[in-house]
Amino acid sequence: MTDLPLASRADYLVGSVIDSSTSLLAQQTHDIVKFAMGSPAADAVPTHTLAHVAVQTMGAGAADAFDYAATEGDSALREALLAELAGTTDATTPDRLTITSGGMQGLDLAFKLFVDPGDLVVVESPTYTNGSATALSYQAELLEAPVDENGLDVEQLEELVVRAGRTPKVIYAIPTFQNPSGASMSLERRERLLELAQRWGSVIIDDDPYGMLRFAGEPVPSLQEVANGEPLVFSVRTFSKIIAPGLRVGWVSADPSLQPLLISAKQAMDTCTNLPLQRLVAGFLREGHLADHLATQRVSYRDRKDAMQTALTEQLGDKARWTDPEGGFFLWVKLGESVDTERLFEVALAEGVAFIPGNAFSPSRRFPHDLRLCFASMPPARIHEGVTRLARAIEKVESE
Amino acid sequence: MTDLPLASRADYLVGSVIDSSTSLLAQQTHDIVKFAMGSPAADAVPTHTLAHVAVQTMGAGAADAFDYAATEGDSALREALLAELAGTTDATTPDRLTITSGGMQGLDLAFKLFVDPGDLVVVESPTYTNGSATALSYQAELLEAPVDENGLDVEQLEELVVRAGRTPKVIYAIPTFQNPSGASMSLERRERLLELAQRWGSVIIDDDPYGMLRFAGEPVPSLQEVANGEPLVFSVRTFSKIIAPGLRVGWVSADPSLQPLLISAKQAMDTCTNLPLQRLVAGFLREGHLADHLATQRVSYRDRKDAMQTALTEQLGDKARWTDPEGGFFLWVKLGESVDTERLFEVALAEGVAFIPGNAFSPSRRFPHDLRLCFASMPPARIHEGVTRLARAIEKVESE
Repeated sequence: MTDLPLASRADYLVGSVIDSSTSLLAQQTHDIVKFAMGSPAADAVPTHTLAHVAVQTMGAGAADAFDYAATEGDSALREALLAELAGTTDATTPDRLTITSGGMQGLDLAFKLFVDPGDLVVVESPTYTNGSATALSYQAELLEAPVDENGLDVEQLEELVVRAGRTPKVIYAIPTFQNPSGASMSLERRERLLELAQRWGSVIIDDDPYGMLRFAGEPVPSLQEVANGEPLVFSVRTFSKIIAPGLRVGWVSADPSLQPLLISAKQAMDTCTNLPLQRLVAGFLREGHLADHLATQRVSYRDRKDAMQTALTEQLGDKARWTDPEGGFFLWVKLGESVDTERLFEVALAEGVAFIPGNAFSPSRRFPHDLRLCFASMPPARIHEGVTRLARAIEKVESE
Repeated sequence: MTDLPLASRADYLVGSVIDSSTSLLAQQTHDIVKFAMGSPAADAVPTHTLAHVAVQTMGAGAADAFDYAATEGDSALREALLAELAGTTDATTPDRLTITSGGMQGLDLAFKLFVDPGDLVVVESPTYTNGSATALSYQAELLEAPVDENGLDVEQLEELVVRAGRTPKVIYAIPTFQNPSGASMSLERRERLLELAQRWGSVIIDDDPYGMLRFAGEPVPSLQEVANGEPLVFSVRTFSKIIAPGLRVGWVSADPSLQPLLISAKQAMDTCTNLPLQRLVAGFLREGHLADHLATQRVSYRDRKDAMQTALTEQLGDKARWTDPEGGFFLWVKLGESVDTERLFEVALAEGVAFIPGNAFSPSRRFPHDLRLCFASMPPARIHEGVTRLARAIEKVESE
């Protein structure tokens, strides 16, 4: 560690399970089936279309294409996005909309606005690592509330809050195709969660990067829809998973009273989101590419999810349980107590397959026997091969 | 204000002098000579070259051009930047270099790493508004130390710290072509500042967006050079003023022990800086465009600064004093006590000229009779016209 006078919050910055796993993964030189990362596959990024639109939007015609953008977002993108979202569960209005540098900055803004040091923040258990890390960066105290196949267990959350003896300032939820579990919150639970938040005076951060990637089942109303005008839902969205992660363009939809504060806070974070790629996304939306792209991707992700389910049933049907998501990128596998998934990770790498150990998704490391698989980034045959390698690695660890 | 349970730090988010000024400016529909903002002029952004390089770097050839970037920065940009900086006062090494989303994120990272609530942070007076705002976002207590024509007055700083009865955790300095004063710290003062910081155990944030835009005088060693291996200098740099602000690409150079912490902190801010524009900047550097572009811009900015000096002498020689910078974008004008520059701003807008009132650059509003002029964004004839309008507005306010 450094000798420099770090802030006390810097504790959260020391290496996590996910860091050590991905750095081990990066060192491998042999063939690895990668179920680890949550990026769209290279073939799922519409590179050719983006390049085509880029030439139009950044070409010599647009004299201001490289200037500062308005902090609330470039008007071209704001208009195209509002039109794209109209009629969906994420429909919003100009006074609620602020463009961000990806979903991650939406989370950073939300925690910055609401969390004082020592405030209680509910996170799902398991949860998205960088989401809980951002809460910790504002020195939140975390309360981990369990997730089951219907998402955040709201009954248990209520008991945990009673036991904590104080109410949470923020509830950080990923209600749809949750990262890492793949579970989605039922409508009933969403309604109940809103009642609790209202009673407690809590803000709900609704982080939903994957909601447009539904390939089965029926859409569930968003928390903002269920809230029906109540200001307590802060929705964080991104183009990272539905167009391309390298753009770093996302948005938040939040109560209009927050917009001037969001603009001030964002000015002191990164001034504005890069303008050329806001224009690029605007062009992509305006030309109708998103709907086409999502239609293609949903079919592809469904096939990949099915392939992984089939392979898991074949290879691990007798020794594991796993979720069966209706969209998104991930499923969650529970192995027996005989398998430590951090140890398994090393053996699996040697066998040629990578995942993320369950403990990466819990600040208090509650999932030593679980793991997350990303089904989105590999074609079916490769998924079959990867699960076969995983089963072989599990056998080896069990016989150690 | 909102009814939602905001964090106590949210106080810093309420509108500043700069916000109200720029929003008033945005409402004007008549011809205005804009000396207000610190963006490069449209004709100072190499849009045509950038568009040309964009086609190469984002074209169909680069399959991963829209993927997540490494959090420390894309290797193509890192290599091109290290080569570009070699031999300059900002030369650095891979273990010190982290790519950021503009200089602003470099500041956010620095304050996040070092400032606990209540810590003392020295800011220059006047200072860059979003710099001090970021310190406030981590609940720093600010100590304003005066700037004169040789930059931060280090003697007075020492006295102020003695009087405060405690040492600063961070000293936030803009040592070269300071925003807003245009002043540069002499070598002697840089050496003395480092001695003080070492004695106090303070980190110096060296924010220098304009250093490559020197059009007169000789380069002064950077604080990092003067520090000669001591880890206490955290250098924040950006391409915003030297290539284009809308890219949101910058970098920090800091002690190698900080790099893993910077990577973790940045992951929970925006995951990574957008990849396509990192590649674009890498291409721009690799093809040698930066040196050519800077050579052109230095001449242009010198001519504009000279035009503004001439016009000020002609129009305001008897009633104002101002700085004469050797580079950068800004100069600072001190009017007599008979002129309140926030009031002047309104009258000046009606006359068709805009600036930023001095109080925008001081959290405790110490500069009611001063103002900042940007000379960089207008051709000489237009600068002459703008200063003439300013003189007219001053006369009107004086006779009110």
